[in-house]
Amino acid sequence: MDYQGAFRSALERIHSEGRYRVFADLKRHRGNFPKATWTQPDGTASEVVVWCSNDYLGQGQNPVVLDAMKQAIDEAGAGSGGTRNISGTTHYHVELELELAELHRKESALLFTSGYVSNEASLSTLYKILPGLIIFSDELNHNSMISGIRGGRGARQIFRHNDLEHLEELLAAADPSAPKLIAFESVYSMDGDIADVPGTVRLAKKYGAMTYIDEVHAVGMYGPRGGGVSERDGIMSEIDIVEGTLGKAFGVMGGYIAADSVIVDAIRSYADGFIFTTSIPPAIAAGAVASIRYLKAHDEVRVQHQERAAALRARLIKAGLPVMPSVSHIVPVLVGNPVHCKLISDILLSDFGIYVQPINYPTVPRGTERLRFTPSPAHTDEMMDKLAVALESLWSRCNIQRVGGFAA
Amino acid sequence: MDYQGAFRSALERIHSEGRYRVFADLKRHRGNFPKATWTQPDGTASEVVVWCSNDYLGQGQNPVVLDAMKQAIDEAGAGSGGTRNISGTTHYHVELELELAELHRKESALLFTSGYVSNEASLSTLYKILPGLIIFSDELNHNSMISGIRGGRGARQIFRHNDLEHLEELLAAADPSAPKLIAFESVYSMDGDIADVPGTVRLAKKYGAMTYIDEVHAVGMYGPRGGGVSERDGIMSEIDIVEGTLGKAFGVMGGYIAADSVIVDAIRSYADGFIFTTSIPPAIAAGAVASIRYLKAHDEVRVQHQERAAALRARLIKAGLPVMPSVSHIVPVLVGNPVHCKLISDILLSDFGIYVQPINYPTVPRGTERLRFTPSPAHTDEMMDKLAVALESLWSRCNIQRVGGFAA
Repeated sequence: MDYQGAFRSALERIHSEGRYRVFADLKRHRGNFPKATWTQPDGTASEVVVWCSNDYLGQGQNPVVLDAMKQAIDEAGAGSGGTRNISGTTHYHVELELELAELHRKESALLFTSGYVSNEASLSTLYKILPGLIIFSDELNHNSMISGIRGGRGARQIFRHNDLEHLEELLAAADPSAPKLIAFESVYSMDGDIADVPGTVRLAKKYGAMTYIDEVHAVGMYGPRGGGVSERDGIMSEIDIVEGTLGKAFGVMGGYIAADSVIVDAIRSYADGFIFTTSIPPAIAAGAVASIRYLKAHDEVRVQHQERAAALRARLIKAGLPVMPSVSHIVPVLVGNPVHCKLISDILLSDFGIYVQPINYPTVPRGTERLRFTPSPAHTDEMMDKLAVALESLWSRCNIQRVGGFAA
Repeated sequence: MDYQGAFRSALERIHSEGRYRVFADLKRHRGNFPKATWTQPDGTASEVVVWCSNDYLGQGQNPVVLDAMKQAIDEAGAGSGGTRNISGTTHYHVELELELAELHRKESALLFTSGYVSNEASLSTLYKILPGLIIFSDELNHNSMISGIRGGRGARQIFRHNDLEHLEELLAAADPSAPKLIAFESVYSMDGDIADVPGTVRLAKKYGAMTYIDEVHAVGMYGPRGGGVSERDGIMSEIDIVEGTLGKAFGVMGGYIAADSVIVDAIRSYADGFIFTTSIPPAIAAGAVASIRYLKAHDEVRVQHQERAAALRARLIKAGLPVMPSVSHIVPVLVGNPVHCKLISDILLSDFGIYVQPINYPTVPRGTERLRFTPSPAHTDEMMDKLAVALESLWSRCNIQRVGGFAA
């Protein structure tokens, strides 16, 4: 058996589709975000502006967060040293779970090592706890939700993206006595569209289903305290299970769910991906607590964030670029071809000091390859002007479709 | 549908088996490990000695590690801000992967958010890359390996624990032309026994199989540079894929694999659990680099660690306790009943200031419930004497079987 050859041909398939990924080596400048040093494989270093970070609000450099992390390191050291059950539950973890429960006004919360793991472990475990469960899943749900749903090996029904009529058809056709769960996201991060959360909850109630909402691209950023779109829409108390992340707007790392105590306790007791893994370091938990508290109290950061996103969108539309119709803080620009997408991204980085990663399959469907900009409160008008000029020149140079189906 | 009732009855099943887990709220004292503050739900705080940490060498409080973490926070901030592909590859990640490759003398390494994820994502992805793959898996492999193997949905063969004759039978019976992988651990952490790595490699070569070794309970602790049991046994270069963790002996968090570049690059390009998740914070990567380098250069820590483990084992055997026959740094004492196990652990904590978590099903098979002690270089003779006295008095008081099948 030629193993080397098998690995090589797997890589060749990716190369031939033009979607081989090269990771840019970056070092962000604390206190000077979104600037960073980009180091090329030959060692050449240069300054770039990061346009694709999920540290949406710049909390990754907020002194309140950094001080809390350093204090925890001084008090308790580096790692947690164990799983949550075997010496890895520190006071910082306990405090963080209380803070998360409060953020979402739920009885309890449960920390996972990442948002990916929180979705994968929770959704697969719900099948174990609720025999006969049918999960109704939005077709554009994140890979981590799909992985959890597939891993649970129970019944699943996929509804068309954000299509409540289709969801209702499926709910109505299902066995009325079966336990049901609707799994969806609030903000879909690659398109920037937002689900009809109240409408989904209404359907759930009508058909006796539970709701599971992934708010990873919304927590910290939507709602008067950063509780997410379900807080903004006044529907938070009607959601059964909220899932969120500490690795995006909160600027640190880790994932969680928040729900009634009995639900959290059952998932805590049955989820392998929670039980059998080292808990996050005390410093990460401490930083997350500080970040959540800060964003609860500083709504002006959210206002500024939305203003910056609107400002960028307006500039790019004015430049005639194919801005996709996002209603959130995410500004995607359609390219529609993986090779072009990578090429534009490469030129932006090398010639303009602009870092935006090409988004290709499998992150988005083939044919919808795009550049995805995430302006933060720290992105200035000047940076935006430079970006618009660079994109305009590239769109002309590369003769890529300008205002297409996505014109605003 | 009575959802609350369904969750409640799932919890009742766990309670009725005596294996409901209560997490002890601990705060370790940096500079004073293994001491920690234990906070009870009513707020009462007291000092305890931690006897069950996987921070085996106390690296979680090594100033070299903590300084590297704080420096990275000062330089680059809190979180990484993205997946590895989308702005989440920092210079610290690149440096850490080079360091890990060097540790295992492999061409490349790949970081994951945890050891759990590294096993789950790598093993399930190997089925995608090698169509027709059969994985030969030790029956006592960790949950994360089982999860990856099941998730890949390919052919699998389970061999009896550390039984090379059984493994050979299965290899000999399999289709000679099928790609094959032997997945096993070096140190099995609940029993403390160690696999015959050279013997396993010999079989792999004889039957044209690849080898995948989980060294999470060995890296940092075995081999002259901390490269694990396969380094100790002089067989590291013959292993195809080494998997390890940064969350145990290295004292931080995260998992990894190390292998030939083409293998690492293929897993990097196909593993969903790697692609779709935020990378570990720069400070964690920086702390890990410092820790690996320190342990490469300080073999005396490993010598001291083994001495402490032997000292504890000798004391407990002398006290007539049923010490299980570990050949590693792990000292398990058999109880054999989940309710007794929890009870002893509770009394040790409340009456003796000794913290050792009960190890019950599903972490170990039912009937083999145990206390599992992990003495570090920082556990003194005095602490060990106190522990032996406490266990003796409890074994007498609770009338638990003393020297049984596991007598040394």
